[in-house]
Amino acid sequence: MKHLLSTKDLTREQAINILDVAEEMAAVSQREVKKLPALRGRTVVNLFFEDSTRTRISFEAAAKRLSADVINFAAKGSSVSKGESLKDTAQTLEAMGADAVVIRHSASGAPARLAATDWISGAVVNAGDGTHEHPTQALLDAFTLRRHWSQVAGGPSTGAALEGMHVTIVGDILHSRVARSNVWLLTTLGAKVTLVAPPTLVPVGANWPCDIKFDLDEALAEEPNAVMMLRVQAERMNAAFFPNEREYSRRWGLTDDRFEHFMNATDQESIILHPGPMNRGLEISSAAADSAQSKVLQQVTNGVSVRMAVLYLLLSGELDES
Amino acid sequence: MKHLLSTKDLTREQAINILDVAEEMAAVSQREVKKLPALRGRTVVNLFFEDSTRTRISFEAAAKRLSADVINFAAKGSSVSKGESLKDTAQTLEAMGADAVVIRHSASGAPARLAATDWISGAVVNAGDGTHEHPTQALLDAFTLRRHWSQVAGGPSTGAALEGMHVTIVGDILHSRVARSNVWLLTTLGAKVTLVAPPTLVPVGANWPCDIKFDLDEALAEEPNAVMMLRVQAERMNAAFFPNEREYSRRWGLTDDRFEHFMNATDQESIILHPGPMNRGLEISSAAADSAQSKVLQQVTNGVSVRMAVLYLLLSGELDES
Amino acid sequence: MKHLLSTKDLTREQAINILDVAEEMAAVSQREVKKLPALRGRTVVNLFFEDSTRTRISFEAAAKRLSADVINFAAKGSSVSKGESLKDTAQTLEAMGADAVVIRHSASGAPARLAATDWISGAVVNAGDGTHEHPTQALLDAFTLRRHWSQVAGGPSTGAALEGMHVTIVGDILHSRVARSNVWLLTTLGAKVTLVAPPTLVPVGANWPCDIKFDLDEALAEEPNAVMMLRVQAERMNAAFFPNEREYSRRWGLTDDRFEHFMNATDQESIILHPGPMNRGLEISSAAADSAQSKVLQQVTNGVSVRMAVLYLLLSGELDES
Repeated sequence: MKHLLSTKDLTREQAINILDVAEEMAAVSQREVKKLPALRGRTVVNLFFEDSTRTRISFEAAAKRLSADVINFAAKGSSVSKGESLKDTAQTLEAMGADAVVIRHSASGAPARLAATDWISGAVVNAGDGTHEHPTQALLDAFTLRRHWSQVAGGPSTGAALEGMHVTIVGDILHSRVARSNVWLLTTLGAKVTLVAPPTLVPVGANWPCDIKFDLDEALAEEPNAVMMLRVQAERMNAAFFPNEREYSRRWGLTDDRFEHFMNATDQESIILHPGPMNRGLEISSAAADSAQSKVLQQVTNGVSVRMAVLYLLLSGELDES
Repeated sequence: MKHLLSTKDLTREQAINILDVAEEMAAVSQREVKKLPALRGRTVVNLFFEDSTRTRISFEAAAKRLSADVINFAAKGSSVSKGESLKDTAQTLEAMGADAVVIRHSASGAPARLAATDWISGAVVNAGDGTHEHPTQALLDAFTLRRHWSQVAGGPSTGAALEGMHVTIVGDILHSRVARSNVWLLTTLGAKVTLVAPPTLVPVGANWPCDIKFDLDEALAEEPNAVMMLRVQAERMNAAFFPNEREYSRRWGLTDDRFEHFMNATDQESIILHPGPMNRGLEISSAAADSAQSKVLQQVTNGVSVRMAVLYLLLSGELDES
Repeated sequence: MKHLLSTKDLTREQAINILDVAEEMAAVSQREVKKLPALRGRTVVNLFFEDSTRTRISFEAAAKRLSADVINFAAKGSSVSKGESLKDTAQTLEAMGADAVVIRHSASGAPARLAATDWISGAVVNAGDGTHEHPTQALLDAFTLRRHWSQVAGGPSTGAALEGMHVTIVGDILHSRVARSNVWLLTTLGAKVTLVAPPTLVPVGANWPCDIKFDLDEALAEEPNAVMMLRVQAERMNAAFFPNEREYSRRWGLTDDRFEHFMNATDQESIILHPGPMNRGLEISSAAADSAQSKVLQQVTNGVSVRMAVLYLLLSGELDES
């Protein structure tokens, strides 16, 4: 595998390989000198057509911990905003010697297009494309889940840890690349996935290997092992298909009451995920966000380890050998 | 000491320790290879909620000279501008493994709030918060003053050099974090401080260990060893409490005439400081700014050395041992 | 030579020295670890008063490949936009220890002004100033031309390779710093230059060592060895002196027909250059841009090598010794 474009393409072996290498990278991040020489002399370009400081910083930290040089390319104010094509931008980065291009784009499929052409010989990493996929987010979610349950079981964090677990994803599934990437990855790793969304925010006719529900309380009554609350995107909020804030929070938010009730039912053993940044009081209450069951900050930490693993494996060509 | 939030908290020993280490760092900056391995593998995040290219660049240069990795996080266009709380931003940086967060914020107390919570385990460095403090600016001012007078005296730049010196700070004291930080630090180091400001721009009831005057000529007649002209902030200029530009310049600016008269009175031995960027012709004339007595550029140079010292001492934990 | 301000100032020996060192740098860029320790501990500041992501990234990649620390200073949102003078900005960078300042400015002559004063003791590199010069662009063009013809001839890429070659530059010559820099450099290196432009876009009274034509087909009938198509700047397009887009493309664009006819006439041996980013369909057709004869991407690659050579030679002081 030369690129990371989606989790749908990942085999179980590839996915487990990434998570295993991410475990090794997590150990590096714990050291005082958090640096490996692995990618010295390699250049990673962050090509961001959409603002996303968190994801950009996470990739930047990951690449620097591997001693790569990082060049940030924000499309705003660049020749891209003067009408330069994706092709010309990509070829320019290629010609400058980019070994990996981490791309964030509002158009679904933009990273795949880069990778399918010969515009770029380096690795393409999808850092979120439209409503399509955000594979490193799903990988860090899987890493967080696997690690948690392995720790609970008292064993090492191994490939089998997600087998039979049940993960419920709640929110605007229709527009969520995070949900899509998780559906594919988690089922590949043997987990069961349930999606919960308002009826207007479920993709019609999507043929996904998971359950779909409209009622959050009904879904929580199934006592899933993990609940992932999606971020409500401000730009959707006043659209006709979107419930108003109050309604959304009441019916699909993880409110204090709902959180407490769910945690009591599951003996405090289920965990809460959120890709961040959180809208506290909207899709998640502060009590839930800051609870011991919330793994939100671990997700951020694990994001750096997972991105180190992805960059390392792609640039060393070792992802295929697994 | 784990953080650098204000100069008010600094003991005399801590302050002198920082200045002494900054002297060593200044020697590094004179070498051809201006680089120490001291912070290799450490990550310094510049978290700037207000634009300040000069301060950001100075910290960036300081961190890179110590071989740290630097990540710039400008709040504009980030999830911060989408309403993310300071808490969530801070916890995210912490989770990504930031060893130090250099924060600039329009709200007084924001850095202290960061440091008081457990949001961040790394070091917090205040790079200017509202009208509260700007401690590294005061440290570089003290460094510049101490170095100058030690050179004049022909001795090394030691802790005692500021004892009994007289420093006059002129301008919009009410809104100046630079003035506040200097009042505390300079008096801690044994200097006498006089503040000069228009009556509307003096903090009422502030219980500071210094003189306050409204008349610049009267203050200069005391022949202070150094005069620090504060920058007039454009955003205040048309407020009701602010004199108009012409009036300000005539009464509180270091005009050509005032500068010449003062320098003649002090036998050219007093010096002029300004935190930059200067409004030439407003608070300071070009003749004064570019004179031999102006230490404005040395302040900038010393800023890098002082910030190297601060980052080094905080991250190595050595500030407490002094 | 301490600065690189224009190609007009370069002697033949200096120019060839830069190109020869760039050849060595190109070899470094082919290695797996694309990094030389040559500028370790040196600081290169990219001081960009105009947006230009491509040029900034190219200098950034070049400096990092030489192990320099790079600090990006975009004038927008900085104290520059608050009215700080070029002098104060420059002196600040100097005081912070910048070893080289790469400057892009909308005012012709700004880099020369920096270099002529004592504001900066480090090297000044002109990265494009108004309608004046863009010397590293011309150097990368010359490098690309020299390399191509040396390869065709089967020999090494040496100084003499441009002797007697004929290069035709097409477009808005009046406002093009790329054209100016190329006229001087290419003639210094022994090439013949022809300029082609609409009559309103030719500098009146310019005393340049080259031919000027208004008719592109007539110019192509001379069968030059290389044709360089200049970018049409969107901001000029609706000015009174500018032909409309359709007219421009028809008369001065390298359309499919014109490209095919020219290539047939020259037995596919002439080559096409463009400084990028291209307006496909306006000054150049996609067929021409993507053809085997187009060297547009090699130009980008060579840009990094040439900028490595320039930074290396200026900072090591070796440009004078040639």
